[in-house]
Amino acid sequence: MSEIRRIGLVGGGVIGAGWAARFLLNGYDVAVFDPDPQIGRKLDEVVENARRVHGKLMSGLALPEGRLTVAASIEEAVRDADFVQESLPEREDLKRQVLARIDAAVRPEVVIASSTSGLLPSRLQAGMARPERLVVGHPFNPVYLLPLVEICGGERTSPEVKTQAAALYEAIGMRPLHVRKEIDGFIADRLLEALWREALWLVSDGIATTEEIDDAIRFGAGLRWSFMGTFLIYRLAGGEAGMRHFLAQFGPALQLPWTKLVAPELTDELIDRLAAQSDEQAKGASMRELERRRDDCLVAVLAGLRANDYAAGAVVKAHERRLMARLGKVAANGDARGRDGELLRLYSGRVLPEWIDYNGHVTESRYLQCFAEATDALLRLIGVDGAYVASGRSYYTVETHIMHLGELKLDDPIEVETQVLAGGDKRLHIFHRLRRLRDGEIVATGEQMLVHVDKGRGARPEEPVRAEVERLAALHAAMARPPAVGRHVGAARN
Amino acid sequence: MSEIRRIGLVGGGVIGAGWAARFLLNGYDVAVFDPDPQIGRKLDEVVENARRVHGKLMSGLALPEGRLTVAASIEEAVRDADFVQESLPEREDLKRQVLARIDAAVRPEVVIASSTSGLLPSRLQAGMARPERLVVGHPFNPVYLLPLVEICGGERTSPEVKTQAAALYEAIGMRPLHVRKEIDGFIADRLLEALWREALWLVSDGIATTEEIDDAIRFGAGLRWSFMGTFLIYRLAGGEAGMRHFLAQFGPALQLPWTKLVAPELTDELIDRLAAQSDEQAKGASMRELERRRDDCLVAVLAGLRANDYAAGAVVKAHERRLMARLGKVAANGDARGRDGELLRLYSGRVLPEWIDYNGHVTESRYLQCFAEATDALLRLIGVDGAYVASGRSYYTVETHIMHLGELKLDDPIEVETQVLAGGDKRLHIFHRLRRLRDGEIVATGEQMLVHVDKGRGARPEEPVRAEVERLAALHAAMARPPAVGRHVGAARN
Repeated sequence: MSEIRRIGLVGGGVIGAGWAARFLLNGYDVAVFDPDPQIGRKLDEVVENARRVHGKLMSGLALPEGRLTVAASIEEAVRDADFVQESLPEREDLKRQVLARIDAAVRPEVVIASSTSGLLPSRLQAGMARPERLVVGHPFNPVYLLPLVEICGGERTSPEVKTQAAALYEAIGMRPLHVRKEIDGFIADRLLEALWREALWLVSDGIATTEEIDDAIRFGAGLRWSFMGTFLIYRLAGGEAGMRHFLAQFGPALQLPWTKLVAPELTDELIDRLAAQSDEQAKGASMRELERRRDDCLVAVLAGLRANDYAAGAVVKAHERRLMARLGKVAANGDARGRDGELLRLYSGRVLPEWIDYNGHVTESRYLQCFAEATDALLRLIGVDGAYVASGRSYYTVETHIMHLGELKLDDPIEVETQVLAGGDKRLHIFHRLRRLRDGEIVATGEQMLVHVDKGRGARPEEPVRAEVERLAALHAAMARPPAVGRHVGAARN
Repeated sequence: MSEIRRIGLVGGGVIGAGWAARFLLNGYDVAVFDPDPQIGRKLDEVVENARRVHGKLMSGLALPEGRLTVAASIEEAVRDADFVQESLPEREDLKRQVLARIDAAVRPEVVIASSTSGLLPSRLQAGMARPERLVVGHPFNPVYLLPLVEICGGERTSPEVKTQAAALYEAIGMRPLHVRKEIDGFIADRLLEALWREALWLVSDGIATTEEIDDAIRFGAGLRWSFMGTFLIYRLAGGEAGMRHFLAQFGPALQLPWTKLVAPELTDELIDRLAAQSDEQAKGASMRELERRRDDCLVAVLAGLRANDYAAGAVVKAHERRLMARLGKVAANGDARGRDGELLRLYSGRVLPEWIDYNGHVTESRYLQCFAEATDALLRLIGVDGAYVASGRSYYTVETHIMHLGELKLDDPIEVETQVLAGGDKRLHIFHRLRRLRDGEIVATGEQMLVHVDKGRGARPEEPVRAEVERLAALHAAMARPPAVGRHVGAARN
């Protein structure tokens, strides 16, 4: 497979727009066709949402984005594509017809993936001239945050096509799950559907409202499901005796008539009740507000799991390493090396909800976190990379002085400017300014001393790190030395 | 209802021990009866696990724990109890027999709750002399972390009993969900069971393994379920047109034969397959390791949601405020006011996984976080409470100097010692030492200057804060002034 750079998307609804956002933020060019005349605005809104949360989750790791094009026809969207993803409504006749058109318009080696949540690929590929390149790649909403993508081939799908699709999805931070036997609804949606059918019965029988049912999930089992599935959780519920004990203890309950045999009929009355209860539950929040809420919570959950390097958190962490490697290449190409008369701008972001304490203020350690992220970026910039650290050499912070000059609020856009005061010998002396971009105000400064060590002992840095530090120190020596440098706590303010 | 201080627990398995831990860590005395001769050891292990994660989630907010007693009989466990929680195996005959014994042994006004996950309270209360005080309080594993508890009364349960149980569960940080119609399996377990039955079919039919099924949840929908239930999520999947649109679009799929009508029979062959796949999935991890993993992830997820003040995070946040209010009372009673010749010890904890960066080092901002938590505790100690802040007065940090002297590792137990160098006027000058408790080494110091403000302007603190600051400054003036005080970044080391 040649390198994939351009993605053709057919269908730009909730799922298609989510694909567009994920591909763009990972640096791929995207062309989208959707008959909706509002498609341009809708795509922009979803991409903007995705950009916000992607920046929060991958703080400071923004790749150059791909280019978004709205195409005038299916053929225009896919003609130059290196990979096609179809995300049309779940109607088999419609999908078959459009897949045949895509098949006729794209280069022969291009993989065509369908986002279908449950239609069988063997049936979808039946009318295609090159059925072997059709594969299901079924994502979950919001596509730009959730890692899962089910991969399922039909009878005629070639094994290489499944491998190629999985590789691309991994490259954009997803977690492919191979569905080995073709089955209606694949794996995930069969499970979701089973739960949903029961939930519909509970509403239909007047046992509980939509909100009560949602609460029964999100305050309990749903918290566990964010990192362990039902089987591993039940293994734990069996205590020290494990799965066998659990089955012996709770297996008999399977014979109880707890769940109804089929889904309830969606009568007008039931639809009215579901819609009314759903409205009440939303408490007047708009879709956009609910989406932001959902995405903020997903970012927080993913960040928490990343810190544990487990489940979806491990996927995010691996993707972060991948992006860092790609960014390292970008830096080496000279894009952020520091120029005459300019300080380094090595960290930018926004004030996140989790930085705010119970009094509504930004926790003071977050100011140091911003400085430390800028310091880390500076180290990467001067060549302190994985190989350098693996050779036993690195820099450590030994001393920091912070001054608070103003106050940040939630969502403030911020940037850290960094000046290298001295370097080259074993000490690296730097000064950071944390600036709010909206009004340019410097809200805090941070002076730091780092020491270079070689196998545990203080030592001068090796090349090419030393030359790069000296280059920056010489560049920055020409610029004004900040008055806060050398200040001690409690000194008179200037 | 008189104040509840002593809890009688009957049954000390996974659920009963979880209740013991939650009650103890919230300051309630607990007596447990369980026929298992190992009960003492098993309870200690669960409580130790719970203590670890409770400390992580509620950092620095440790209430004095309640006292744990292992009782020799059911009657001994419940005789002096102000509230009884039964957590026996799910056998109706056993529960009815034991509930009658509890009923006969406890004071008439005491509420008796059953942890049953699906048996009907009307049947459980049938043989009791005081059936009106029996209520279901169904928790979820691990009880010491998950907030959900389903409350369900039988035909003869008094409404006050449900209210009393809900109030107690809220006092220990839980989220009661009232099940308004008595139904087998209540709400949550009907939903879990529906999903599990489908999962069992997928294994039984050889479609997927237990691990693949778990992955289909935890990398996708499970992440959403940790804060929003199925209905709100589907509302969002409907896009701008909402729930009605979703039902119109995906309702027809309900007619597809995706889910089987009844659960598969648990044949020996299926049990063998489930157990073998579950073993393989666990990759040799012991139950204790899996439990730690689960609990660490739950803490991270709950902490992330707390930062968003949403779903289970809002429950944790509200409980934290409650604990803080109770701790405020404790401090006012003089337990931590600072004594002659002793520094203040206002923060203790452990190095958590989320403090570790990708190189395996503790992120430097975490050192400041420890100092800032000690500073917050100092402010609470001197009377800067909610009412004081609401009156427009508070202290703000204006300057900090940190020295790194050693390195912390994951799980290191740590403590911050704080010295008040000067106070009383509008400036408060303090010095922190961060000590590793295992070897007593001081790994970092933090010097801070805070300024007292009154409606936005620098001003002397009001009484009683001023007197308390002056008392501490006078106490600490007699102690050695740390040599790092007044040091600037880059000064020669002593």
